Amino acid sequence: MNSIHVETPLKNYNIHFEASFKSLPEHILELKKNYSKIAIISDDQVAPLYTSQVKTVLESLNVEILNFDFAHGEINKNYKTINLIYDFLITNQFDRQSLLIALGGGVVGDMVGFTAATYMRGIDFIQVPTSLLAQVDSSIGGKTGIDFNGYKNIVGAFHQPEMVYVNTKTLRTLPTQEFASGMGEVIKHSLIKDEAYMSFLENNVDAIKGLNHEAITELIKLSCLIKSDVVSKDEREQGLRATLNFGHTIGHAIERLMNFKRLHGECVALGMLAASHISYAIGHLTTSDMDRISSLIDLYNLPVKIDGLSPETIYTELFFDKKTKHHQLNFVLLKTIGTCYMDNQLNEKLIMEGIKAILK
Amino acid sequence: MNSIHVETPLKNYNIHFEASFKSLPEHILELKKNYSKIAIISDDQVAPLYTSQVKTVLESLNVEILNFDFAHGEINKNYKTINLIYDFLITNQFDRQSLLIALGGGVVGDMVGFTAATYMRGIDFIQVPTSLLAQVDSSIGGKTGIDFNGYKNIVGAFHQPEMVYVNTKTLRTLPTQEFASGMGEVIKHSLIKDEAYMSFLENNVDAIKGLNHEAITELIKLSCLIKSDVVSKDEREQGLRATLNFGHTIGHAIERLMNFKRLHGECVALGMLAASHISYAIGHLTTSDMDRISSLIDLYNLPVKIDGLSPETIYTELFFDKKTKHHQLNFVLLKTIGTCYMDNQLNEKLIMEGIKAILK
Repeated sequence: MNSIHVETPLKNYNIHFEASFKSLPEHILELKKNYSKIAIISDDQVAPLYTSQVKTVLESLNVEILNFDFAHGEINKNYKTINLIYDFLITNQFDRQSLLIALGGGVVGDMVGFTAATYMRGIDFIQVPTSLLAQVDSSIGGKTGIDFNGYKNIVGAFHQPEMVYVNTKTLRTLPTQEFASGMGEVIKHSLIKDEAYMSFLENNVDAIKGLNHEAITELIKLSCLIKSDVVSKDEREQGLRATLNFGHTIGHAIERLMNFKRLHGECVALGMLAASHISYAIGHLTTSDMDRISSLIDLYNLPVKIDGLSPETIYTELFFDKKTKHHQLNFVLLKTIGTCYMDNQLNEKLIMEGIKAILK
Repeated sequence: MNSIHVETPLKNYNIHFEASFKSLPEHILELKKNYSKIAIISDDQVAPLYTSQVKTVLESLNVEILNFDFAHGEINKNYKTINLIYDFLITNQFDRQSLLIALGGGVVGDMVGFTAATYMRGIDFIQVPTSLLAQVDSSIGGKTGIDFNGYKNIVGAFHQPEMVYVNTKTLRTLPTQEFASGMGEVIKHSLIKDEAYMSFLENNVDAIKGLNHEAITELIKLSCLIKSDVVSKDEREQGLRATLNFGHTIGHAIERLMNFKRLHGECVALGMLAASHISYAIGHLTTSDMDRISSLIDLYNLPVKIDGLSPETIYTELFFDKKTKHHQLNFVLLKTIGTCYMDNQLNEKLIMEGIKAILK
């Protein structure tokens, strides 16, 4: 199996898994779209590594191919960068029959996706994720967006790609810490959906961390299957999709309190541990389940404790986008390893217990 | 009939016709959405006339209702104004369960629609059009957008409203010239779709210009039916929807050449006359058809001639968004009064004949 088929209300598309960029042009031809132009859009960290490779591979399409790079990082995920991309597209006369390729990590995918969603009221785009986080998570599901006034992803659109093309070899240039961050979402997928997947992660630590081709391809496919299955059934986060927020309620609070200086996957790992502790306190998980979870997080170089924050500070931050502390919080909890459920009735005491479990 | 039901691929909604704002709350309740907050968004020309009226009427809903006004006009239809609206929504903690009401003309509808399409990846909005152009045209069809670097509507999204609510009485505060501009699109609807509608416009000039309630309601309904029928069948302008561009190929060129100092409907009127002349030159229309068309345009205070532009300047401007003059132009032409077709094979001579017919 080299592809997964994803169905959404408005569009069906494939996720392809390859060990190079070679098959990209043939998969573009399969779309039968006869594109007028193609833009490879990336950031200034990823572009020097891969843009010319992708450009060369696409030459066989006999279509004009241009590229545009912007300054990397969450700090540039805003309308100013989007305006630079619009400007590039207008200047080069991109039209409704043009194609954008998002080459890079999550920030690139979110921004190119948002540009594609809004340029001329929507044009086609392809996700070519190069980070683990983007490959197993953000490139799938059609969420696109930018930050505004410090609010993450508050401006955006649902816009599905025509295709996701994963070249697993790009992980070789990914910084170790970024790889660990991606593993946060991978571990999340196993915990909420698939106990056997968790065993696979436990039994193949060296192969996965060593980027063994078979192991890493298996991991990306399993995570893509879980993510795409959820978003196929619930594109717009009415219910099921919210289970993907496991670890994110407390994780996001920590991320904000650390001013985004800790990576997303690290904060999610802490959030998952806190939520698991709550599940344990309620009586769903056993002590050995808890040991398994924290061992796995530790094995993949993710934190199991954090210092410098008080439990009260974290608790208060959970309500940052709510009007009052009386507003309900939606928690995803584990029923067992591999199954989860939503709970919006947790009391302060239980939540504080979860938070305290991850403080040094 | 006080409502028209519109069906689109993603959403079905109603257009309501009333002589006041009174029924607005009951139609909002019919949506069964339990909105968390409502924002009435308007510009600084329309807001002083109607915002407090609408706010008072909505009090019965027992929902927090806020309002925001921005500086009016096409010149403010850009991301800077959109950012002010985002800021207002964030500051006042609008969430995914909130509702925006676009109260105003076409610019307000396009901008509030685009904000609704992109705030938190899409929230609900209602169109309450107060100009004739917005009531018969721009509020229907789901096109939202802003201008960028002088390119009209180049940034935007398809986002259907939950409802369109037309209070015909708002036309009483519309400047005469703006009313005439709206009549440009009304006449267009009759020419491309419905000869009987054209007769209605010919036979009721005084009643329509005098804003007689029955006549004006009939006119808005007939135009809404034509527009909504076309967009139901072709939301994303693959074919049929393009027939609504009758008069717009040459009309848009004139609009740009006049730096948007002539109103949209005036330029469309000139464009329709030029396109009709081409239809006549091809042999579809008779001399008496031509007389009927130019008389009707004249009766509704729209121009039948323009001076200060050379035919060559207008011809060249037709290609402003094309790479070369060899690029095909899509013209909508009349087969008869009330039926139209697309032609992308017109030669320069025929197009120049059409252009010359509208020059003084």
